[in-house]
Amino acid sequence: MAGQRRLFARGFVYGVATASALAYSYLLSNEEEVVKPVPVDPLVKRGAEILKYGVPERGPAVHYLHNHVLAYDQARRTPLWVAEHINSQHLQGPANRKHSKFKPDPSVDPMFTAHNKDYWKSGWSRGHMAPAGDNKFSQEAMDETFLLSNIVPQNIDNNAGFWNRFEMYCRDLTSRFEDVYILSGPLYLPTQEDQQKVVKYPVIGENEVAVPTHLYKVVIAERFNTPTSIGAFIVPNQQIGFEQKLTDFQVPIEDLEKSSGFKFYPQLDRSKTKNLCEMDSCKLLDKKEFELYFIGRKLQSARTQERVDKVWKELEEKKLEPDQYLVELYAKKKVDLSAKQSEE
Amino acid sequence: MAGQRRLFARGFVYGVATASALAYSYLLSNEEEVVKPVPVDPLVKRGAEILKYGVPERGPAVHYLHNHVLAYDQARRTPLWVAEHINSQHLQGPANRKHSKFKPDPSVDPMFTAHNKDYWKSGWSRGHMAPAGDNKFSQEAMDETFLLSNIVPQNIDNNAGFWNRFEMYCRDLTSRFEDVYILSGPLYLPTQEDQQKVVKYPVIGENEVAVPTHLYKVVIAERFNTPTSIGAFIVPNQQIGFEQKLTDFQVPIEDLEKSSGFKFYPQLDRSKTKNLCEMDSCKLLDKKEFELYFIGRKLQSARTQERVDKVWKELEEKKLEPDQYLVELYAKKKVDLSAKQSEE
Repeated sequence: MAGQRRLFARGFVYGVATASALAYSYLLSNEEEVVKPVPVDPLVKRGAEILKYGVPERGPAVHYLHNHVLAYDQARRTPLWVAEHINSQHLQGPANRKHSKFKPDPSVDPMFTAHNKDYWKSGWSRGHMAPAGDNKFSQEAMDETFLLSNIVPQNIDNNAGFWNRFEMYCRDLTSRFEDVYILSGPLYLPTQEDQQKVVKYPVIGENEVAVPTHLYKVVIAERFNTPTSIGAFIVPNQQIGFEQKLTDFQVPIEDLEKSSGFKFYPQLDRSKTKNLCEMDSCKLLDKKEFELYFIGRKLQSARTQERVDKVWKELEEKKLEPDQYLVELYAKKKVDLSAKQSEE
Repeated sequence: MAGQRRLFARGFVYGVATASALAYSYLLSNEEEVVKPVPVDPLVKRGAEILKYGVPERGPAVHYLHNHVLAYDQARRTPLWVAEHINSQHLQGPANRKHSKFKPDPSVDPMFTAHNKDYWKSGWSRGHMAPAGDNKFSQEAMDETFLLSNIVPQNIDNNAGFWNRFEMYCRDLTSRFEDVYILSGPLYLPTQEDQQKVVKYPVIGENEVAVPTHLYKVVIAERFNTPTSIGAFIVPNQQIGFEQKLTDFQVPIEDLEKSSGFKFYPQLDRSKTKNLCEMDSCKLLDKKEFELYFIGRKLQSARTQERVDKVWKELEEKKLEPDQYLVELYAKKKVDLSAKQSEE
């Protein structure tokens, strides 16, 4: 029993001392661990006296959801980082965001959660860190991306525009790299103001949810179980037009780490990876492609022939040339809806 | 071996899931723990896949020093909280701050540490969270309070004035309550600006060390091993005059918790404690007492009769009536230095 207890205590000490990273490497490892007794450090012993009434709690180190994992910022009521792994299997399926609702994450302490009301009339949209669209395979997983632990106050044009195209690019990577690992989160960066550098950001609602100045992503593209390349990006939380490229926002990962206070992907040997934007294009959809994409989505969700025709007219109005995918989708929709209407 | 491994893994999972609080309760406990195997949660299993390249690292959950314990904010290069336990034994002894030097804490990753240079010419002083004066018993412990992991950029008048008097009050509590537990740290609170609430604070130096808008302390006074009373205080990081009372800055601890993102002293049953400022005075030294205190310090460190006389003259200049302590100290100094000078 004494031996058991020592082991148990040792697990604790490790869990505390090395953050949570080791826990997973242990869970993932198939090797047997050689366990030696570890003497209790006198500083830790004195620390236990100092912390007689407990260590200040900042919530779980990691929140586990069905297809994303996150650390939460109890002071700012937003995530600190949200981690994903996606491949083409996650991107197909029947899940639909119309069934999902934004709501507080029950795994966040009620004292520290954001509420939908905080966002209402704030002028800021509810921006997903793990995107809903990365979870088409499971309604449950998609629903969980709407938990407010995965949400930050985001400029609405950024959310629907540049950031959306960035997320689409990440999904598109799965067609060329099989597995893609993504970390996303908010940043609070200083700007020069008169003679000093100042961090400045609004907080919204009764719960004072922090509005980040920037958002970041770190993306690993993996092929044959080997991480081929990595890219880190810091995007201002504001409207960004089509004239700006994703590569305009690429930064050395160390710069992002220094700003965020996190060391990312500590178990990745970066020396064996290439620059994502050199290996792949880092090219987002341009204006025309983006508009065609939305017309495709509208076509797909059209329920009547009239709606199909109205959407198709948009192409003419916007002087857009439909691509082959749209032409085929249009033809298929017309046939399907015509059959459906004659059934009724 | 398989059994050992399961136990070890279980320690990990607990350490991760419940933050570090349990670790200490375990270390402090004398009871044997009944250890049962715990199945791995499928969400944790999927989480390990998502976190294949490791959990983002924010450094050790807790840094242990000889007489204080802290959590560090890698993004802001300041502590998040610093915990102390003091009694009268810690407040007496030969340690002297003239031997101590401000310097980076070697337990903080070099990428995330502040440097003295960040503070130079910034207009902000290096403000201790665990005060040097709480560690007279040990030069080593005092030296460690000068590690920059224990320091925040603090308004110099606040540092030398109100905050200093607050620290003196905390030390004085040990004469009435035996054991005192203190948590101190920085805050970044919003202010109303036009139609919105905004968090705004400078960052200083190359490493962009954050300048807190406020500082906090939570103080538990304990007698006969029983926590009698608790008080929480939020003090603006600016000059505060003698006309303001400590009680002006007392807040419900829940308000501080919501602002800071931490639940403090989770193992304290608050329902059994009283309000510190009702049980004790929460009265800081007034202007006259504070000036007499400094004259006492100057007298104590005087090395020549001339210096003693010069300090004594300050009393007249400032129209201060010396108290009995000062009168006796003056007499003793005159005798000691006279003996010393005749020896030379």
